[in-house]
Amino acid sequence: MTDKIDLQQVRAYLLDLQTRITGALNSMDPTPFVIDPWEKPPGEKLQGNGITQILEGGPLFERAGCGFSHVTGPQLPPSATQHRPELAGAPFEAMGVSLVFHPRNPHVPTVHMNVRMIAAKPPGQDPVAWFGGGMDLTPYYGYEEDAVHFHSVCRRALEPFGQDLYPRFKIWCDSYFRNLHRNEQRGIGGIFFDDFSELGMLRSFEMMQSVGDALLKAYLPIVQRRMDTPWNAHQRDFQLYRRGRYVEFNLVWDRGTHFGLQSGGRTESILLSMPPEVRWSYQRQDPPGSQEARLLSHFLVPRDWV
Amino acid sequence: MTDKIDLQQVRAYLLDLQTRITGALNSMDPTPFVIDPWEKPPGEKLQGNGITQILEGGPLFERAGCGFSHVTGPQLPPSATQHRPELAGAPFEAMGVSLVFHPRNPHVPTVHMNVRMIAAKPPGQDPVAWFGGGMDLTPYYGYEEDAVHFHSVCRRALEPFGQDLYPRFKIWCDSYFRNLHRNEQRGIGGIFFDDFSELGMLRSFEMMQSVGDALLKAYLPIVQRRMDTPWNAHQRDFQLYRRGRYVEFNLVWDRGTHFGLQSGGRTESILLSMPPEVRWSYQRQDPPGSQEARLLSHFLVPRDWV
Repeated sequence: MTDKIDLQQVRAYLLDLQTRITGALNSMDPTPFVIDPWEKPPGEKLQGNGITQILEGGPLFERAGCGFSHVTGPQLPPSATQHRPELAGAPFEAMGVSLVFHPRNPHVPTVHMNVRMIAAKPPGQDPVAWFGGGMDLTPYYGYEEDAVHFHSVCRRALEPFGQDLYPRFKIWCDSYFRNLHRNEQRGIGGIFFDDFSELGMLRSFEMMQSVGDALLKAYLPIVQRRMDTPWNAHQRDFQLYRRGRYVEFNLVWDRGTHFGLQSGGRTESILLSMPPEVRWSYQRQDPPGSQEARLLSHFLVPRDWV
Repeated sequence: MTDKIDLQQVRAYLLDLQTRITGALNSMDPTPFVIDPWEKPPGEKLQGNGITQILEGGPLFERAGCGFSHVTGPQLPPSATQHRPELAGAPFEAMGVSLVFHPRNPHVPTVHMNVRMIAAKPPGQDPVAWFGGGMDLTPYYGYEEDAVHFHSVCRRALEPFGQDLYPRFKIWCDSYFRNLHRNEQRGIGGIFFDDFSELGMLRSFEMMQSVGDALLKAYLPIVQRRMDTPWNAHQRDFQLYRRGRYVEFNLVWDRGTHFGLQSGGRTESILLSMPPEVRWSYQRQDPPGSQEARLLSHFLVPRDWV
């Protein structure tokens, strides 16, 4: 069986995924996305282009960014070839879709999803590709039912590709999306994988597609269930405070963000993930037994949800 | 001439400085500081204690944190002994005062100041100490007069110790407080120095004291001049947006913050510097010629202010 990957097909999938996702969001919040195609100026070491889509100030979503990017470079970075010494220094392409949606209502959780491919193109040979991505959910007010739903969809998306994948990627997610300086999970997790090609390229690509396709199934039913829940100023304040943790994770720990900003990536596209409004306050303590305290004790700890 | 340093004297200076500064702030904004003494739990590698003082939600200051900390460790980190191989692995003490004040009124700038000492204590020998610190100002609406005043006080504080110090430390500050991923200065700068002992220990300690003592002279007259300037919702929005840059600098680039969070420092004390409320929005563009655009073109570029 041949296991050749067509990079144009990956690109087409990702662009279509971006369109489907932003379209689905607009069916719930009609605020138009700003659609911002960009191209890296010629002469820089990395070449590339992308389409940033972002909706700001909507009634349902306060800030919802979904970006596609596609870069090519003359030489794989050493970190990418640790396990593939034979590809060291080869030209490469990397492409992906990345999104973070920040809803206005504190009862609706924030979601993050990313699917990406990196391909080495050794001269005179077929490309060698591997995949990464995942999705995770960050509630401000915890609902068990939502966490179970989100994880069930994640599990279902991976099931056709192997029974072991969901448990492995679930643990990987828990260990990645963690504010170590707070000893706190960022959210209730989901799935995360990187550097993945163990099913062969084509089947691994199919798995990545299955994850990308699952985002709307995992997230929209939760939005629908919570979007009409009334909220008050106290809950809004808690949401803004918890968003600070999101910022801390992304700017301090997230390797993609950090590396992107420090290596000359497109700042405004990388920082799509920032919440629209955030608060910090000193040593906030919520009363034991409050919903706010329960978020930490019952949701922001690694748990088996399904 | 003997050049012995008494570490208890450094500690006493720093604690007194903290008290003087928070006292002076309270003469302008009577909101009480929360005074939070802390101690590292025994058994951790770094031992230490500190006093965090923070005022939140005042009429003049929305968040003003001023922390003292004093840690001791069994072994100097390698980064501290690059230029002093003879001290590698020696036990050490580090202490300092660090502050960030975030005013409510967008016409009043944010200020940051830090003074610190690190001392190696090779067994059976006198301690060897060096000093670091500085102060810098971050306006949201630029006033030349304020920038000139701030830099003049910085220069005056260093003048008795050498004519070359202000120019050197001013450039050092400009190159440090820079959001490289935005190609933007964090503010209008000030002075910054690190690893400083070239005047001898005692005289270098005096210089550090002169910098610490200068903070109130550099900052309070600016607060007094701007605190009654009326402001509107547009200006408030710009302030919250610019505060995002402060967060980005501190979490992405500031070595102290980053290292502190990643190495098990006291999170809430390190993150005193975070603004109380922040906004992000995609590719904000202010009209050319507006006061907001002028901040970037005229103030957030390295300039000779005095």
